[in-house]
Amino acid sequence: MATIRDIANKLGISPGTVSKGLNGASDISESMRQAVLDTAVELGYKPKTMQFDKKICIMVENMNYESIDQFGYEIISGFERAAARKNYEVTIIPTNLTLQTKEQYDTFMLKNGYLGAFLLGFELHDDYVKQLDHTKVPTVLLDNFIADNKHVGYVGTDNYEGIKNAILHLKSLNHRKIAFLNGTKNSMITQKRQDAFLQAMEHAQLTPFESLIAYGNFNEDCAKDHVESFLKHGATAILCASDLIASGVMKELSLKNLQVPKDISVIGYDDIPLAKYLTPSLTTIRQNRTELGNSAFVLLDSLIHNIHISRIELRPEFVIRDSTSPALS
Amino acid sequence: MATIRDIANKLGISPGTVSKGLNGASDISESMRQAVLDTAVELGYKPKTMQFDKKICIMVENMNYESIDQFGYEIISGFERAAARKNYEVTIIPTNLTLQTKEQYDTFMLKNGYLGAFLLGFELHDDYVKQLDHTKVPTVLLDNFIADNKHVGYVGTDNYEGIKNAILHLKSLNHRKIAFLNGTKNSMITQKRQDAFLQAMEHAQLTPFESLIAYGNFNEDCAKDHVESFLKHGATAILCASDLIASGVMKELSLKNLQVPKDISVIGYDDIPLAKYLTPSLTTIRQNRTELGNSAFVLLDSLIHNIHISRIELRPEFVIRDSTSPALS
Repeated sequence: MATIRDIANKLGISPGTVSKGLNGASDISESMRQAVLDTAVELGYKPKTMQFDKKICIMVENMNYESIDQFGYEIISGFERAAARKNYEVTIIPTNLTLQTKEQYDTFMLKNGYLGAFLLGFELHDDYVKQLDHTKVPTVLLDNFIADNKHVGYVGTDNYEGIKNAILHLKSLNHRKIAFLNGTKNSMITQKRQDAFLQAMEHAQLTPFESLIAYGNFNEDCAKDHVESFLKHGATAILCASDLIASGVMKELSLKNLQVPKDISVIGYDDIPLAKYLTPSLTTIRQNRTELGNSAFVLLDSLIHNIHISRIELRPEFVIRDSTSPALS
Repeated sequence: MATIRDIANKLGISPGTVSKGLNGASDISESMRQAVLDTAVELGYKPKTMQFDKKICIMVENMNYESIDQFGYEIISGFERAAARKNYEVTIIPTNLTLQTKEQYDTFMLKNGYLGAFLLGFELHDDYVKQLDHTKVPTVLLDNFIADNKHVGYVGTDNYEGIKNAILHLKSLNHRKIAFLNGTKNSMITQKRQDAFLQAMEHAQLTPFESLIAYGNFNEDCAKDHVESFLKHGATAILCASDLIASGVMKELSLKNLQVPKDISVIGYDDIPLAKYLTPSLTTIRQNRTELGNSAFVLLDSLIHNIHISRIELRPEFVIRDSTSPALS
């Protein structure tokens, strides 16, 4: 592993100046500091850290987490609690594409003294996600898998098992024309759920119709672009890739004077607090978000200790409530 | 959750007799004890356990683990060390089909007061594996996945990543006719590696030939049934599903006066201690067995605490040694 002396030698400066650069001292120039950091990253330098000074961060993009009824809340609080028990200090960093173009991921992490990070809500085209192919910083991604880099791990919920049970439930209620309103196209989780839906339909010996499958996004308002077309093509049930999408679908159906579940059944995904308070209460595929956060920490702590877990997957739980009933025949 | 009183009521006996049955007291009949245990299992009774009395077990079948050069050794020692740190008492139980037909898995576990088990080396047709579809006993399987039962988890090494890197390595050495000698047909890991091999060949844009793919078993002596046929069909490299198989393959090649890697390249799987002492030393796909054991314990401990992780997968490491070199052209 590279030392402060290696960085000093490479740059032809004193180890003292390197330390200043790494520690953000104010008496060296910004350009010298940048040179120190870039060289440190290039040589794979890792800061030594003491028991009471273990800093990690959570980076969040495209995901709401501020209040308990939002998807990210319990994931983050589960992570924070697990981290606190092991004396890590956790910083939450909302991020976006602009921030990511300003500075390389590894440089950002080193500069701020973070030993590792948990990334939520990132999309495949994000700069930081692309840089994860080669990062040496221990990193855990929710719902994103990076191949061939032992420093990066994936945590998520088994997509197939939940969707399979939803489809079998609908089949037992005599639904045959099942629509699937998926999330944002540009995310790994959406691709996984697309595959899971097709595989589950095949497993249930049902035909998936192209006209009944669409990509939306993970918000309520994507429903209005697709519900009408699903209905026109004869859907008797709509499986949604999130509870928010399902809530939007139910509003859309209500505007068309259709009753859930009498006229059409709806299933959500996640079981956020909203799900059981909708009218009718929502049948959904539950992800245990506290445990997702907890598991993400277990994985990150393992990577920091050079235990190269590549994935931890949790079981979903299929929760049957009032938004599904037998298909109109 | 069922109580001792529930069991007593169901059988029409006193709670004291139920306690005796559960605790294996000598002053009740064997048939009464069996009735108590069967009813306890049926009602989903779980023993209350104190901090200093947490018993779990490791069941082993078809796997050598007694000495450090055997596949199971580090898995089991890694598990035991992690368990000891959390004050679990671990018992190792060698098992076989006869033992499994004598008693139901859940009954065995309850009778012996085990809170959970880690199962190694089981095959798909084993009675106990079949019973895992419905068990309520926290159970972790090495290399076997059980769908739809939240009490059972899977731990293993990512099969695709290791095999993909082996194939890309052989391709970079100009090998095109790559043979694959897999393990015992009746195991999930063998099926997974079969899929991984085909997928990796496709990824590398190489053609897999049926005549170059065979099932053996996880021992050295399966090599003699297949090497000749692989050679006849033009193989320039043989990928094996374990180091033991690879060792057998190298012996077979030596008997035919062929030199590894000059005449033919060989790759193993696992990186057991033997691998680096073979002549030539073996290029192989390393599984970190200590971490597999460690992760198996983390998973079992989670299941015991009602955290329903379905799988933990580790990264393989592709280790290049002397048994691979450019293909003869």
